[in-house]
Amino acid sequence: MIDTLDVFSSAHSFKEEDLRDKTVVMIDVLRACSTMVTALHNGAKGVIAVGDMDEASKISRNLDSKSFLLSGEKDGIKIDGYSLTNSPLEHTEDVVAGKTVILNTTNGTKAIKRSNHADDIIIGSFLNLSAIVDHLRKIDKEIVLVCAGWRGRLSFEDLLCAGNIIYELCSGELPNSARDGTKVAFGLYDKFADDIENSIKSSNYAVRLDGIVCEEDISYCCQRSILQVLPVLNQGIISDSNGKEQ
Amino acid sequence: MIDTLDVFSSAHSFKEEDLRDKTVVMIDVLRACSTMVTALHNGAKGVIAVGDMDEASKISRNLDSKSFLLSGEKDGIKIDGYSLTNSPLEHTEDVVAGKTVILNTTNGTKAIKRSNHADDIIIGSFLNLSAIVDHLRKIDKEIVLVCAGWRGRLSFEDLLCAGNIIYELCSGELPNSARDGTKVAFGLYDKFADDIENSIKSSNYAVRLDGIVCEEDISYCCQRSILQVLPVLNQGIISDSNGKEQ
Repeated sequence: MIDTLDVFSSAHSFKEEDLRDKTVVMIDVLRACSTMVTALHNGAKGVIAVGDMDEASKISRNLDSKSFLLSGEKDGIKIDGYSLTNSPLEHTEDVVAGKTVILNTTNGTKAIKRSNHADDIIIGSFLNLSAIVDHLRKIDKEIVLVCAGWRGRLSFEDLLCAGNIIYELCSGELPNSARDGTKVAFGLYDKFADDIENSIKSSNYAVRLDGIVCEEDISYCCQRSILQVLPVLNQGIISDSNGKEQ
Repeated sequence: MIDTLDVFSSAHSFKEEDLRDKTVVMIDVLRACSTMVTALHNGAKGVIAVGDMDEASKISRNLDSKSFLLSGEKDGIKIDGYSLTNSPLEHTEDVVAGKTVILNTTNGTKAIKRSNHADDIIIGSFLNLSAIVDHLRKIDKEIVLVCAGWRGRLSFEDLLCAGNIIYELCSGELPNSARDGTKVAFGLYDKFADDIENSIKSSNYAVRLDGIVCEEDISYCCQRSILQVLPVLNQGIISDSNGKEQ
């Protein structure tokens, strides 16, 4: 399985055709995927990822106003008329249970849209890492880990999370036959595994948003396998496939 | 210097504006940059990188037929009418001395063209690694290592070479403040430093071109710091800046 697994380092680093018939794990650690996983864990009915406020308002117009919440921020400040920012810590059970969360996220949405030829799209983060790994072990399809990145560049934390998934899947022994992206993610994880939280706290994201995104958000997103959620995209809505099985 | 240094993992992973006024080291280990470095070491007057045969023939039409050589291949076979393939080992002194080499290279040419806002563009490879490092230590500008990659994806060998340059620049101690791309390249190098040749021999490039590119080519390109060439792009022509100083 590791031989055919691939890792793409940003939403710009692949052709849509490259994902045809594959299982895609979309990774955007800070913070879109961590927020989705948290919202679903806390009972949200579903999450809809949108690329901007226009798309959010277009979708929300067709929904009963009590059935959804708008999450998003501009320059770190909650958008006028929105219920929540992008912080996972605001997506608590009493706020999101039973609701559909419409989440503004530029890089994550782009990665999801460019994965439209994939067979399945699953949402990955450190928070639900073991649920992802358990699922990938069971399937028989080619797997691609798509890191959302930032404006076409790689993001340290996304590639580190991809590396952690790979490390678990191959029990720490990467075969020589692994592909380039897989080796890069694995190498990064191998180097920084002992210091995930601190290394992410000095990542470009953290530096770029210093003073805007609180440190608690980042600490929270660095916790591994604390939520047994397996978010799967279906007809534009991300919902918890593990929850459904239970 | 390491704090402001950045690494881009492919020709698609940055905006042209990101390189404005910076010093770019363009890295395409297999084989474009290794071939350029070798040709210049062996006395080629200059190298012109082109993206396809049309561009090559357009440029060559304006030159005296004895002054240049065409290098390139299609599916691993020398192109009709060309003197050489892309193999660095064919660019020997008796073949290239005094000539301008017009080299067909898709990913490398794209990376060079997208770096047109840079202040300087230098050609990097394992072969001239110490010449690159010596030069970077002397300059006072922001540095970007641009890995050519393959069709927008990262390439193991290019990122590994970037990691090796960074490792030398920071004497093996990467500060926490390093940028994401820098940490990724450093992590990769840290993992595979002891086994560069073997790890590159199992890279996507080597697997993709198995039977087309000979193993000797790859072994040759994995040698570190054997050539003291500093190829610099000037008005479309790459020539040896170290050679000129001597």
